[in-house]
Amino acid sequence: MGGAVGTTAAAGIELIRRGLQQPTGLPLAEFSDLDLVPYQNIRIHGWDLFDHNLYEAAQTHRVLSREELEAVANDLGSRRPWTAVSNRNYCRGVVGERDSTGTHRELIAGIQQQLSAFASDIDGRVVVINLASTEHAVEITDEIYHRADAFERALDDNHPGISPAMLYAYACITQGVAYGNFTPSRSAEIPALRELARDRTVPIAGKDGKTGQTFLKTVIAPALRARALHVDGWFSTNILGNRDGEALRHPESLENKIGTKGDVLTNCLGYPVEDHLVKINYYRPRGDDKEAWDNIDISGFLGHRMQIKVDFLCKDSILAAPLAIEIARCLDLANRRGQGGVVESLGVFFKAPMTAGDHPPVHSFPEQQMELLRWLRATSAEPEAVAGSFVPRPE
Amino acid sequence: MGGAVGTTAAAGIELIRRGLQQPTGLPLAEFSDLDLVPYQNIRIHGWDLFDHNLYEAAQTHRVLSREELEAVANDLGSRRPWTAVSNRNYCRGVVGERDSTGTHRELIAGIQQQLSAFASDIDGRVVVINLASTEHAVEITDEIYHRADAFERALDDNHPGISPAMLYAYACITQGVAYGNFTPSRSAEIPALRELARDRTVPIAGKDGKTGQTFLKTVIAPALRARALHVDGWFSTNILGNRDGEALRHPESLENKIGTKGDVLTNCLGYPVEDHLVKINYYRPRGDDKEAWDNIDISGFLGHRMQIKVDFLCKDSILAAPLAIEIARCLDLANRRGQGGVVESLGVFFKAPMTAGDHPPVHSFPEQQMELLRWLRATSAEPEAVAGSFVPRPE
Amino acid sequence: MGGAVGTTAAAGIELIRRGLQQPTGLPLAEFSDLDLVPYQNIRIHGWDLFDHNLYEAAQTHRVLSREELEAVANDLGSRRPWTAVSNRNYCRGVVGERDSTGTHRELIAGIQQQLSAFASDIDGRVVVINLASTEHAVEITDEIYHRADAFERALDDNHPGISPAMLYAYACITQGVAYGNFTPSRSAEIPALRELARDRTVPIAGKDGKTGQTFLKTVIAPALRARALHVDGWFSTNILGNRDGEALRHPESLENKIGTKGDVLTNCLGYPVEDHLVKINYYRPRGDDKEAWDNIDISGFLGHRMQIKVDFLCKDSILAAPLAIEIARCLDLANRRGQGGVVESLGVFFKAPMTAGDHPPVHSFPEQQMELLRWLRATSAEPEAVAGSFVPRPE
Amino acid sequence: MGGAVGTTAAAGIELIRRGLQQPTGLPLAEFSDLDLVPYQNIRIHGWDLFDHNLYEAAQTHRVLSREELEAVANDLGSRRPWTAVSNRNYCRGVVGERDSTGTHRELIAGIQQQLSAFASDIDGRVVVINLASTEHAVEITDEIYHRADAFERALDDNHPGISPAMLYAYACITQGVAYGNFTPSRSAEIPALRELARDRTVPIAGKDGKTGQTFLKTVIAPALRARALHVDGWFSTNILGNRDGEALRHPESLENKIGTKGDVLTNCLGYPVEDHLVKINYYRPRGDDKEAWDNIDISGFLGHRMQIKVDFLCKDSILAAPLAIEIARCLDLANRRGQGGVVESLGVFFKAPMTAGDHPPVHSFPEQQMELLRWLRATSAEPEAVAGSFVPRPE
Repeated sequence: MGGAVGTTAAAGIELIRRGLQQPTGLPLAEFSDLDLVPYQNIRIHGWDLFDHNLYEAAQTHRVLSREELEAVANDLGSRRPWTAVSNRNYCRGVVGERDSTGTHRELIAGIQQQLSAFASDIDGRVVVINLASTEHAVEITDEIYHRADAFERALDDNHPGISPAMLYAYACITQGVAYGNFTPSRSAEIPALRELARDRTVPIAGKDGKTGQTFLKTVIAPALRARALHVDGWFSTNILGNRDGEALRHPESLENKIGTKGDVLTNCLGYPVEDHLVKINYYRPRGDDKEAWDNIDISGFLGHRMQIKVDFLCKDSILAAPLAIEIARCLDLANRRGQGGVVESLGVFFKAPMTAGDHPPVHSFPEQQMELLRWLRATSAEPEAVAGSFVPRPE
Repeated sequence: MGGAVGTTAAAGIELIRRGLQQPTGLPLAEFSDLDLVPYQNIRIHGWDLFDHNLYEAAQTHRVLSREELEAVANDLGSRRPWTAVSNRNYCRGVVGERDSTGTHRELIAGIQQQLSAFASDIDGRVVVINLASTEHAVEITDEIYHRADAFERALDDNHPGISPAMLYAYACITQGVAYGNFTPSRSAEIPALRELARDRTVPIAGKDGKTGQTFLKTVIAPALRARALHVDGWFSTNILGNRDGEALRHPESLENKIGTKGDVLTNCLGYPVEDHLVKINYYRPRGDDKEAWDNIDISGFLGHRMQIKVDFLCKDSILAAPLAIEIARCLDLANRRGQGGVVESLGVFFKAPMTAGDHPPVHSFPEQQMELLRWLRATSAEPEAVAGSFVPRPE
Repeated sequence: MGGAVGTTAAAGIELIRRGLQQPTGLPLAEFSDLDLVPYQNIRIHGWDLFDHNLYEAAQTHRVLSREELEAVANDLGSRRPWTAVSNRNYCRGVVGERDSTGTHRELIAGIQQQLSAFASDIDGRVVVINLASTEHAVEITDEIYHRADAFERALDDNHPGISPAMLYAYACITQGVAYGNFTPSRSAEIPALRELARDRTVPIAGKDGKTGQTFLKTVIAPALRARALHVDGWFSTNILGNRDGEALRHPESLENKIGTKGDVLTNCLGYPVEDHLVKINYYRPRGDDKEAWDNIDISGFLGHRMQIKVDFLCKDSILAAPLAIEIARCLDLANRRGQGGVVESLGVFFKAPMTAGDHPPVHSFPEQQMELLRWLRATSAEPEAVAGSFVPRPE
Repeated sequence: MGGAVGTTAAAGIELIRRGLQQPTGLPLAEFSDLDLVPYQNIRIHGWDLFDHNLYEAAQTHRVLSREELEAVANDLGSRRPWTAVSNRNYCRGVVGERDSTGTHRELIAGIQQQLSAFASDIDGRVVVINLASTEHAVEITDEIYHRADAFERALDDNHPGISPAMLYAYACITQGVAYGNFTPSRSAEIPALRELARDRTVPIAGKDGKTGQTFLKTVIAPALRARALHVDGWFSTNILGNRDGEALRHPESLENKIGTKGDVLTNCLGYPVEDHLVKINYYRPRGDDKEAWDNIDISGFLGHRMQIKVDFLCKDSILAAPLAIEIARCLDLANRRGQGGVVESLGVFFKAPMTAGDHPPVHSFPEQQMELLRWLRATSAEPEAVAGSFVPRPE
């Protein structure tokens, strides 16, 4: 929550509530006819490893200008995140002072109490979005990840294979709180939790927000396919200097990240590109600013070679925060309409979209966008079902 | 015909016919289920201002390698384009030795004789694609451009306001030959000729092939809109050194070109971008290779500024030739199915798509591509109607 | 003075004086052994077409941050530029309310009074740097530009061929005030004024500050020559949105600008590059930020072709202001050492360096830099000669 | 020798000899007044791990066009490299069928016999340039690397710490053959061999040819320093797909390569850049073509941030071959003039220039270039001393 994305979302919503900012960059702002909760009705809270209020946290990330922060200083300064569940077996890059103590069941109960209190405090519905630092890749061959009953027993046994991200997802699902995973961590995606979300009719979505480079990749690749321009190689490199970049210096976390970027291209093109390289570099001069440089080698008519180079000078949190907000609004709608399990139609927001069954996801951005709009219109038109409020998960 | 695009198309089809090349870069090659004429059944012929055979012409353009040209030297060497209708009031950049002599009606009769002879020669159907150098922008306020009967009288009167491109389009339409305009010149788009095409049930399409920079612009802009990333400015510059670039050094021709690039962006974004600059520079070191450099200034969440830069190192004729071929195949299908007037569903191939009525065209590439595939499937499924063969127009 | 460069220089010197900033970006800051006036001893004043104080002016240019401006608000707010001499025959892009009234001789007397008053006010020496908007290109074939006596008579006759920039240069030279021309305008470079500067032993230098694109061009070109990489073409394009860019929209001013960029390349390479294009585009989203994009086509061993692309995301005034300051410091040194006429060793600061005689200037950045350091060391070591203070010219 | 650089050099010299090519890209071609051996008098031979003639080898590298290769097919086809000394403890990326057999002393004797035979065959002087694949980094703390007598004993003992590159350098030096190291391998640079070269008065030079990215880095960095533009970070990434790139996939070889790029920047700027990243990526679509992309983050006046991006689309062997040729010509001159030990003035050709003593090398390109020209003029003017001929070393 005290991360760059969480504080940017919190400050942004506050600026919009006060009429100091337009909803620029919020993808669904222009669709006023949909039954989505208005931005100004959203209240943001969450967890953090560090003990500072949101104003202090936002200052360290240097995403927002002094003017922007001052305008909402009172509001952000009064909000202090709950202490996040932490386990350094799963996240070595960015850690707080110490690991959480308590059994899995105790930690879950704590999370659920926090959610209940917040819901009653704001007198509304809650949605949780995982914005925490990326956890290490976890092998999920064990049956505890594959069957809900085995997962429950593993919780009882305090099984070390269950990561904080899974604890949060479980806490939400069993409390009827919709859950979106904006990170590459393995969380609600494991079959056991997907089974639970279906059974309890709780909407979940994920994973790994599609912000900069992968966004453009899934925009351009389908167009190259439509023009039969064959991709011989695609070299993607990134430089970024924020906490996210620092976490990704640890090979175990990076593995998770690269993994979610992997088959995107094959999916968009219809054939594998052997020379598809994705590099992520921690480079401090940029801070939260990020530069994503792509070189695409293509062959056209008669095999002639051409190149496309794309350089995206972007701001990580500025791209991510509005997506996190829209995912929350969409999951809230799904929850009110009684949709449970993976909401596949939200795939446009994710690098590695979860699907409801075993089929592979669609990665093509134009197709995903069309599916989102179709779903939004159809779902908005359905009669209401339930209730809650919006809480992003830790960072 | 002896231009870079025409000779590349001719050599390419010949290489494919002989099995020396795959149909890479031909957008519809993968749709083998559609009722389009097979590439190897196509025969290409046309007009030129210069008196050389296609092999000699292809050598001067330096698009194809020596190996590629040698493989089809016999075939290309044996084909000598017909003498093109020429009028230096309409094209100053690239001209032959002298203007055509004869009345409008005589010139039209000549074109029609050439088409008939070719059709009987190959025993097939004919389609004409305009690949000629860009003509100057023509003011079309006069009624001769707006009503078929007035246009007919202007032909009788040898009216100087009728350009070579219009003569060709008229000759085709009145002979039942489908006509596509791959250039920015004013031709079949004038209301008088559109009326005629509808009345005679002859399919027409245009205008100005969407090859490099505008292609990518219409791919990226809709995605920026979907993500609510506001475009503050878009600066596009090109360097190219082929005959096309030389023609565009003449302000009157350039005006036509820039004109067709104009409202593309507004259409894709849903709002005007005041700082949308498009520059075209004749720069000889590149020859037919072209470099299209775009800088996009965008604002995201909370108005934060970001930039996207795209550098497309492309080959003009390599991108254009396969589109010209596919347009011809689609128009041939339309003709066989008895579709007359503007085939609006071919908009994906053009920078300035003609529409059947007064409504503005769709410019978004993903939407155009979906419409093309929908049309192809629906039209392929219809019963056959007529017959002909494929002839590109001059260059 | 109230332009972007002048206000940036004034605010910067003030921030350094107060110890709020380091002398980053000031090329000669590291040479503490040279006899140059310390930055903190400099006082900046000047002329402007607009009637606002320096604080108000600096706000409109958006170069400096709110924090930076607030820190020196008192100082800048108390300084109001003198009214500049203005003549809309020479500068159409940016003009004040009305042209100056008075004869040439009266205007000159006014300037000289302002300089004297300032010198006595600060009790120091004065240097004038021309930072005004670019004037139109002037044909200088007439003898009034070539002989000092003819120029004097033209002043007496109120000759319309004498521009404001020439009036300022004359006023300085005849008052013993060193004069540097940071703009492309024709000013002290005309033979008549060079003759005068030599005769009166007043140092002059110019013209057109070498800030971004030309700076890098003269860095890279000599290295390509050293490696025998032949330049086949060099395409330079710029986008910028400040007042300078606006002025350059007027073809007459642009001509002056492009002119000074012209033979730089030939000089650095030792042979002419026929395809050397320089484009300047007024593009508002950037404001004072500027983007200079270069594409260089080169041939290496066995004629193989390669490309170098350079993209410089720079800030015009941030690059220019420290050069203007260093030119002033150097001219002041020259004046104290009794050097008159063109100080050729300052060529590294200019796009179109003036030379003392008829020989062409050196444009190679490394050679210029070496000459500057040689001159600084030699001149610093000479005994002192004279006295004054530093005043930049209008903007 | 059968590598991309060696075959390009051999074919190039042959094309120049026959008058089919100009000496474009050869840095010293324009200095006809220097006493360097004419290009057409050079004969190239060498060693290789693979058993093919130079024509077959050149075909596999795809650097030269079919036309270029055919023109010299007879000559290249008739030359079969000697079998190179090979040891897979030192080079795992690219290896021949098996390691060389024989003691160190036997291998050295073999090399010297080959050199003698070649010298007598061409009736000329010999120079050896190491163009072999990069060997692994070797720790050189042991005294065998530091004292000539210890090195001699290690040879007698068949010490496994002596790499093939060292054997070649030793063979040359003790036979009076000048030796240049164009690779990052540890070879003549070890103190023991430098001592020997001084004692025997044999000129040596190295190491690691400064071709693309580092060349531009040492051109731009000194200019940034001259303008006091502070480098906050420098991110360099490369994509290349030739055998060199493949070898560099092995971390041990890469370490050698990155090592030689390391302190270049500190040296040019006068201060360390903590965020200086250099990445090399093996990316096959490019083959011998290489793309070097640099992003430079700089701070200027008042600490304002700017960026420079450089994209060099180059051809590795086309840049390297002429440097290898010029190094050979310079070493030959040094040998004839009786200069022994490290020829420090050749630093401009190397990424990690060796110095004659313990002082650090100069990396600034302009300073190196000036020193080269000074040395060439001074040395050319000296009276002749000795004699030999030119042989590049293996690859």
